[in-house]
Amino acid sequence: MQRDVIQSFTFALKARDGGARLGEIVTPRGTIRTPAFMPVGTAATVKAMLPETVRATGADIILANTYHLMLRPGAERIAKLGGLHRFMHWQGPILTDSGGYQVMSLAKLRRLEESGVTFQSHIDGATVELTPERAIEVQCLLGSDIQMVLDECTPFPATRDEAKTSMALSLRWAERSKQAFAAMGAAGQALFGIVQGSVYPDLREESAAALLEIGFDGYAVGGLAVGEGHDMMLDMVAVSTALLPADRPRYLMGVGTPQDMLAAIARGIDMFDCVMPTRSGRHCQAFTWRGRLNLRNACYADDPAPLDAESACPAARYSRAYLHHLVKSGETLGAMLLSWANVQFYQELMGRAREAIASGDFAAFAAEVDRRYAGSTDTAEQ
Amino acid sequence: MQRDVIQSFTFALKARDGGARLGEIVTPRGTIRTPAFMPVGTAATVKAMLPETVRATGADIILANTYHLMLRPGAERIAKLGGLHRFMHWQGPILTDSGGYQVMSLAKLRRLEESGVTFQSHIDGATVELTPERAIEVQCLLGSDIQMVLDECTPFPATRDEAKTSMALSLRWAERSKQAFAAMGAAGQALFGIVQGSVYPDLREESAAALLEIGFDGYAVGGLAVGEGHDMMLDMVAVSTALLPADRPRYLMGVGTPQDMLAAIARGIDMFDCVMPTRSGRHCQAFTWRGRLNLRNACYADDPAPLDAESACPAARYSRAYLHHLVKSGETLGAMLLSWANVQFYQELMGRAREAIASGDFAAFAAEVDRRYAGSTDTAEQ
Repeated sequence: MQRDVIQSFTFALKARDGGARLGEIVTPRGTIRTPAFMPVGTAATVKAMLPETVRATGADIILANTYHLMLRPGAERIAKLGGLHRFMHWQGPILTDSGGYQVMSLAKLRRLEESGVTFQSHIDGATVELTPERAIEVQCLLGSDIQMVLDECTPFPATRDEAKTSMALSLRWAERSKQAFAAMGAAGQALFGIVQGSVYPDLREESAAALLEIGFDGYAVGGLAVGEGHDMMLDMVAVSTALLPADRPRYLMGVGTPQDMLAAIARGIDMFDCVMPTRSGRHCQAFTWRGRLNLRNACYADDPAPLDAESACPAARYSRAYLHHLVKSGETLGAMLLSWANVQFYQELMGRAREAIASGDFAAFAAEVDRRYAGSTDTAEQ
Repeated sequence: MQRDVIQSFTFALKARDGGARLGEIVTPRGTIRTPAFMPVGTAATVKAMLPETVRATGADIILANTYHLMLRPGAERIAKLGGLHRFMHWQGPILTDSGGYQVMSLAKLRRLEESGVTFQSHIDGATVELTPERAIEVQCLLGSDIQMVLDECTPFPATRDEAKTSMALSLRWAERSKQAFAAMGAAGQALFGIVQGSVYPDLREESAAALLEIGFDGYAVGGLAVGEGHDMMLDMVAVSTALLPADRPRYLMGVGTPQDMLAAIARGIDMFDCVMPTRSGRHCQAFTWRGRLNLRNACYADDPAPLDAESACPAARYSRAYLHHLVKSGETLGAMLLSWANVQFYQELMGRAREAIASGDFAAFAAEVDRRYAGSTDTAEQ
């Protein structure tokens, strides 16, 4: 007897602790325990990590960037090669962004108009058009499990009028994205809407309400962590999640530090992505249960202590002295081990957050992490 | 009942096939099946590979560079941290060179005299002295299982007189190295002598005979692969091994390509080291059972075939299209996977060579590899 293949995308809320939520997203490619951190695999690779290592850290899902992959190696090429999962040897769920954010931040923007954006590739200068329909088409070619609507990531700062105009455009694109996804999406794939509205609570509310009207499998909070500051970001998260339905997952895009993520979980966020653990790992920075360490610091040259005695990560078993030596010598293994240890720390952080929500101890857990990270210094310790 | 800990270094010759030898070196840290290829871990890391991955490729032993480690992080520091094996998480045997070769090739040489060499570090310009005694002391501080005598790697080309003078100095240093090792070496550690003499058969013979007189646990053939060419190299190997005792392992330093290694095995060599598999891996080159491939080549952009269908390496399961994408994108994972696949290819090559010697098919095996590598092209194939 064959096991039934799950062909739908579902979210189940398992427990609450204050605003924090414990949940489970079930997809045809596997279950995502929430709160979840999605390591970023921009160019079809979580940088300096093997996919099986990413999986072993506890990651249920990764993120890949539509913008990068449509430019190189190309979405049609990946589709011809059997899709992104096969291409990069990652069998679990993949979330793809729409490409909109990178068009704004990386490409030489040519023209933003009602139909979409036209831009020059940062790789070869080619002129490329991205519309809501093309963004969905590309994500379907990749075979993405969770797809994002194309939106305009409102620049910061923006006046209320600018923010409203931008948010309204994103809403019209969201509607078109929904229609395109209805035509092209496969069974079990999901489409998320994105709440915009900059730092204006009423615009955030207007955006959320209109997205609910269209109806999505999940909702992201976008346009944050762009310079508005920690407190304002959290206010906007709270304003947004207050209006979002309890039975859909909520994703805060591009965030963040351990403290930011825990504060957002307390405000009802379920999913995160951020380049921080891998980028920091390539820049000698480690996230540990005792805070952040900069392994270039000379205080580690003779430190026999493991990177993080409290972590279960094999990479965290290496001595600080060895890691210091590797990063001082410019050895690739330094970036490999620190990226690994950081991604695992982020997963362990999510794992402990889930346990804390289940046991009703989330606030105490978040306060403890805050305390450890506030006192984060580079003092060698055994 | 505890298992006895082996406290000695032994070599057993198991079979011969023409000049090729099948053997086993037993050390307190494990057995080395010969012919053996030793991946190079210059700065206490086989570049872009985890130590457990190196082990999983089938490597019984790795090489580390005394010159690099004495300069950074320092031999005394590594000793204080528990030795090189613990430092780099490699529990198997380690062979260290004496540092002499790198002093000549990397450092700004200051003075070569009877006592030793004084040079400037290529890292920070510090003045450092390396004598035969210090080379052994450093290797003992590292805890190396197989240590090499300090020698002068005779420059190429050299006149007969230059080569003789250089070889004679190396012999006096070999004698001093032996005495230093007798005083400092631990039970089960081994010291190898190094045959020099440039391209002059009689000097090679004189060197080998004098080294035998001193007596070593194994013998290396040095000063080759420095520009003398394939045929001359093999002639010098044959001249040297003809005089070396059958009951000691023989090591050809710094060689080489698959074809070079097989030709040297046919002339009685048991051990090799070379940066080629890892360095090539960082430069988009793959060694496969179908020859060498350059993954930057555009012919691989749409090639769904695995890197090497004949290899058992997990890294060789990735498609050529994916590897092409990674190297074109400058992604670290490209170097990681190609280094891994190349080191495993070298180990599989040694494994098949050992099987071929055991079954008396070595000449046919070597001819088959020659044929495959002679026809090595970058034609995409399924």
